[in-house]
Amino acid sequence: MKLLLINPNTTAAMTANIAEAARAAASPGTEVLAVQPSFGPASIEGFFDEAIAAAGVAEQMRLAGDRIDAAVIACFGDPGLDAAREATRAPVLGIAEAAFHIASMISTGFSVVTTMTRTCVIAEHLLHKYGFERRCRGVHGTDIPVLALEDGGLGSMAQIEDCARQALARDRSGAIVLGCAGMAGLCAALQQKLGVPVIDGVAAAVQLAQALHGLGLKTSAVGDYAPPLPKAYTGWAAPLGW
Amino acid sequence: MKLLLINPNTTAAMTANIAEAARAAASPGTEVLAVQPSFGPASIEGFFDEAIAAAGVAEQMRLAGDRIDAAVIACFGDPGLDAAREATRAPVLGIAEAAFHIASMISTGFSVVTTMTRTCVIAEHLLHKYGFERRCRGVHGTDIPVLALEDGGLGSMAQIEDCARQALARDRSGAIVLGCAGMAGLCAALQQKLGVPVIDGVAAAVQLAQALHGLGLKTSAVGDYAPPLPKAYTGWAAPLGW
Amino acid sequence: MKLLLINPNTTAAMTANIAEAARAAASPGTEVLAVQPSFGPASIEGFFDEAIAAAGVAEQMRLAGDRIDAAVIACFGDPGLDAAREATRAPVLGIAEAAFHIASMISTGFSVVTTMTRTCVIAEHLLHKYGFERRCRGVHGTDIPVLALEDGGLGSMAQIEDCARQALARDRSGAIVLGCAGMAGLCAALQQKLGVPVIDGVAAAVQLAQALHGLGLKTSAVGDYAPPLPKAYTGWAAPLGW
Amino acid sequence: MKLLLINPNTTAAMTANIAEAARAAASPGTEVLAVQPSFGPASIEGFFDEAIAAAGVAEQMRLAGDRIDAAVIACFGDPGLDAAREATRAPVLGIAEAAFHIASMISTGFSVVTTMTRTCVIAEHLLHKYGFERRCRGVHGTDIPVLALEDGGLGSMAQIEDCARQALARDRSGAIVLGCAGMAGLCAALQQKLGVPVIDGVAAAVQLAQALHGLGLKTSAVGDYAPPLPKAYTGWAAPLGW
Amino acid sequence: MKLLLINPNTTAAMTANIAEAARAAASPGTEVLAVQPSFGPASIEGFFDEAIAAAGVAEQMRLAGDRIDAAVIACFGDPGLDAAREATRAPVLGIAEAAFHIASMISTGFSVVTTMTRTCVIAEHLLHKYGFERRCRGVHGTDIPVLALEDGGLGSMAQIEDCARQALARDRSGAIVLGCAGMAGLCAALQQKLGVPVIDGVAAAVQLAQALHGLGLKTSAVGDYAPPLPKAYTGWAAPLGW
Amino acid sequence: MKLLLINPNTTAAMTANIAEAARAAASPGTEVLAVQPSFGPASIEGFFDEAIAAAGVAEQMRLAGDRIDAAVIACFGDPGLDAAREATRAPVLGIAEAAFHIASMISTGFSVVTTMTRTCVIAEHLLHKYGFERRCRGVHGTDIPVLALEDGGLGSMAQIEDCARQALARDRSGAIVLGCAGMAGLCAALQQKLGVPVIDGVAAAVQLAQALHGLGLKTSAVGDYAPPLPKAYTGWAAPLGW
Repeated sequence: MKLLLINPNTTAAMTANIAEAARAAASPGTEVLAVQPSFGPASIEGFFDEAIAAAGVAEQMRLAGDRIDAAVIACFGDPGLDAAREATRAPVLGIAEAAFHIASMISTGFSVVTTMTRTCVIAEHLLHKYGFERRCRGVHGTDIPVLALEDGGLGSMAQIEDCARQALARDRSGAIVLGCAGMAGLCAALQQKLGVPVIDGVAAAVQLAQALHGLGLKTSAVGDYAPPLPKAYTGWAAPLGW
Repeated sequence: MKLLLINPNTTAAMTANIAEAARAAASPGTEVLAVQPSFGPASIEGFFDEAIAAAGVAEQMRLAGDRIDAAVIACFGDPGLDAAREATRAPVLGIAEAAFHIASMISTGFSVVTTMTRTCVIAEHLLHKYGFERRCRGVHGTDIPVLALEDGGLGSMAQIEDCARQALARDRSGAIVLGCAGMAGLCAALQQKLGVPVIDGVAAAVQLAQALHGLGLKTSAVGDYAPPLPKAYTGWAAPLGW
Repeated sequence: MKLLLINPNTTAAMTANIAEAARAAASPGTEVLAVQPSFGPASIEGFFDEAIAAAGVAEQMRLAGDRIDAAVIACFGDPGLDAAREATRAPVLGIAEAAFHIASMISTGFSVVTTMTRTCVIAEHLLHKYGFERRCRGVHGTDIPVLALEDGGLGSMAQIEDCARQALARDRSGAIVLGCAGMAGLCAALQQKLGVPVIDGVAAAVQLAQALHGLGLKTSAVGDYAPPLPKAYTGWAAPLGW
Repeated sequence: MKLLLINPNTTAAMTANIAEAARAAASPGTEVLAVQPSFGPASIEGFFDEAIAAAGVAEQMRLAGDRIDAAVIACFGDPGLDAAREATRAPVLGIAEAAFHIASMISTGFSVVTTMTRTCVIAEHLLHKYGFERRCRGVHGTDIPVLALEDGGLGSMAQIEDCARQALARDRSGAIVLGCAGMAGLCAALQQKLGVPVIDGVAAAVQLAQALHGLGLKTSAVGDYAPPLPKAYTGWAAPLGW
Repeated sequence: MKLLLINPNTTAAMTANIAEAARAAASPGTEVLAVQPSFGPASIEGFFDEAIAAAGVAEQMRLAGDRIDAAVIACFGDPGLDAAREATRAPVLGIAEAAFHIASMISTGFSVVTTMTRTCVIAEHLLHKYGFERRCRGVHGTDIPVLALEDGGLGSMAQIEDCARQALARDRSGAIVLGCAGMAGLCAALQQKLGVPVIDGVAAAVQLAQALHGLGLKTSAVGDYAPPLPKAYTGWAAPLGW
Repeated sequence: MKLLLINPNTTAAMTANIAEAARAAASPGTEVLAVQPSFGPASIEGFFDEAIAAAGVAEQMRLAGDRIDAAVIACFGDPGLDAAREATRAPVLGIAEAAFHIASMISTGFSVVTTMTRTCVIAEHLLHKYGFERRCRGVHGTDIPVLALEDGGLGSMAQIEDCARQALARDRSGAIVLGCAGMAGLCAALQQKLGVPVIDGVAAAVQLAQALHGLGLKTSAVGDYAPPLPKAYTGWAAPLGW
């Protein structure tokens, strides 16, 4: 299957790193195509960054259309997820969503360790929108900037491990969700150190995309996710019209 | 006070109509400046349209910055609301949000009458995000396209009135919220016909913006709505970087 | 417009102070008429006080009827709010309700700083009834008696400021709501000190009342807030019958 | 044990009828003392009636103080319940609350059949406040005036039975809660006809009061229900001060 | 009335102790029959123990059928409660459920003090299922093994008292619920020490069972709790078939 | 990988049918081992059946221990799921849970079509426990007995299709979840007829189990799902002790 991996920010090095993580997580038959928007912020650390990035995800999804088998949006705020689901019949997964689903299958309660504290509210809104607000027992910021994780988070291991240990104790949690695509590289080592399952959303989303593909399921074309209605788009977005 | 009215879609005639409605609702000292994004969909009738329009709202808000006293986002999905609140210290209101707040001050339960049925889910997500899910007793689609309302909704009066009457009876509601900026023109007449309060989000948002300005309150710069962190933006969005 | 300000307790000095705060917050065309019940407790610091005070609010609203344009109930428990909305078609606002609405327009999360700890539960019940339970991140008691705030709270500034600072840190909040009409006098200074928006419910309610009046909206006469059914009242309440 | 039954309205015939129902439901050792406020509405059919009646309940509870072993508030809106719990250490039960508790012990879902449709919202608010919103599957008005039930509801049997049958089918419920103290007289016959448990709040509250008394439990004097703080009351309420 | 007390674990000494507590709590006319399953764990301290114990409760309830007037399941996880309600028309109460109901009648917020921390999640799931999640302000584990409480908890008094004091302070609670049938013996003394109501679920359930019996109410035979459909059972469970 | 498929009922033909469905859904490297309890009901159509079946699931899981790579519980009530997660470190999935997760990845709202109406409440409890109560817009009973589906549901196609069509229209849903393992056989054909995604829990659980295995994740051994504490079991359950 062809899996489109969209890095919503415009840092090419991060796109490459996330793609590597995705390929490591994918099954043999899965081909990972990694892209990033033609515009937008170098990293996503707040609502404004996210709004522009969501349009970037929509752009990339529109360009890919139905030529792919599944897509993954590789930023923990799941920017543009609903839009992407209108733009293709292929199943689409956000990495926050994917991590929450997976974490709730192996624990009764999990904690999220993320980057800037100011973005905790984005995760909290998603948890509530998706229905995981009772499964997640805490969202914790480390105030590590996203681009400081370009190395897969290895340089920030100590800080993230410390935050995770505190979260496990305070929240009485049984698993840790990593709240940034840039942390994928430290998932295995962190799990080893902590002795609890650690979930990286990139790997989780790749596996769930494969599961949906294996089930032969596509995003519902009836109702809320029906393809966009035909209409004119203007300005730089003119080619995105329907 | 200077109030920036952002029509998130790119139909200039609709921008003009909404601006007229906003000016009719504003107090004497309020100057309404109406803008629309430099790009994007002619109307917003789904998640994809909305994602592009949200970036357009962010663009306009970024351009206006702190040179205004308040801003209103005039589309019932409140696209780009959180982003806009980072981009300026002036208070910002979405028209869905504004209508829900106002409706819950004059009734124990209200119903929403909107355009395409496929967009009901957008209103439902907002109701839940904002905490009005127990105040709103139903969201009802009329399947009138947004651009058919360019005349302020007058041509669709009968259909909208019929939907509202059914909603009042079925939902045991005491007020109607109009679920599209394009319906502003029929608010007064509909209220007359139905005998219950009818709330137009554009007028509601203008009055609430004036109230916030009167209180001397600005969007909190601490925490979740702090100004965006400095970073590079690329492509068409390069000028929006911080 | 004529705005009736009802102080639900029977301390005349507090009525005068609150009226002053309301007049300071009102726009030029707003005339503030301040009243208090003909009976009841000197302050409201629990459920029993509140039940008697709610009847006092109902009494004053019944006496005023439709001769006013809007009404504000100036006690943070919003006593008698639903009753008042049946007794007049003029829009009626409680100051807790008003503060919660305003705070949620300028922050993603706010904290309440109130008087006696034993009354926190009253605010918590209101937050839940109104739907702000996810926006409010904490209600904190200072154990300052209400009547110690007769000076507008100035004498208790240090204690309130301290409680607010702790609340902002612990709750990760972006705004403070003052949980007592008697604290109106320290709103501006506290906002200066804390560097976040501080919302006084009296001012918030006055501005929202003006907004509703500006919208030409009245409390819905259909359904749950319909005028009371005709019936005999006895005892001291005989004149309140319908 | 001495059980104080407070009829919150001022219709003496109704007080007598409810007292009779309470006595029929009580165990041998329980003495039922029935009172009504010295003021207030002849019946309670809305928020305004209820606010005055709640003060009447507070008055009667204040007069009784700790000279009783338990108290029951015999109106389905539970007016003055929190206030009463401050005014005496004896356990206090509202009949709506009691009926909801009992119904949820013998069914997974129940429906409420009440009087005026306009009062459904009062029951809905209580269900939500108490946490029974997922157990109750519907609240249904019959638009029978409360005082038409002075005969124990016998004259309205057909109408109530019809409403109950529709509720059971539409709500997929297993039990019916009678939503007015005045319906106590038809509980047994209605249960016979419908073939499902029918719960009368008066009997339910009497039995629960006995259970609390049997457990030797009193309302908590610590925290939210602590006795009122000492303070002056004025006007007709002067004797109620603490 | 004949009250069947089912101890879901297989420790006979504990069955005897709980029966003694139940008899002490019962009214004169109530005969307590205490049983335990013919199989299963010596104590219940997790989901696996509970699943087997729930089948044991179902077995005992099936054997008793309608030859009893009420039943109580004496383990704080309420194992097999829904199953038991299908197996007899007699009302059935779990002790967690009973304690939660009673605690919410005498306080606005309560805390639970239980045994192993790992079982807190079971209580939390029940609170949520029953609708008490807003009334309970905290569930606290002491990590005392269940069988260490065989003496009625007297030997663990200091540890439990300490945990309860911390819970009252941290949770701002007005009452304590004991989270294990084995703690029944220290209820009175603990209440004396703490100065707040302390609720033992065994006594609470016995009194509520008497209340339901006094009301002449039975578990609804219509809908979700209808008697099981006729079908074959195999293996050791063959005699339990319908 | 070795996947243990547990049919919680004791009908061998159904075990074989479900195993066939599971094998059809599995990827090449997945070996499906199908078992059923050594005791219990021939089908599960209520709480009593389910309680016994949950013990049966626990038994089978205990016997398998850690000799498998993942397990699936193939009954739509997910009986014994929490117990099974204590009994093995291999990830365990219930088919209701799996179907809900998958459905919420491809639609904003789905409807469940199940067997006996009396079991709808079981699905509703699960939806609430798992957090899908806002994603699922309706649970609908067909009153087809479970064992009438032994042919994979083919004989009941018309009835199920009819129920699904009504559900899609009434609930405004975009996907259908089949509410019984016995319906697996009609999934593909029904999807073809309805034109919306139809989710069979057996296939969904198999794919999700593969995904968890692919991620190298195991059920958390820390906290709520820690292995059972050592203790004696008696009667037929003696071999299950820890």
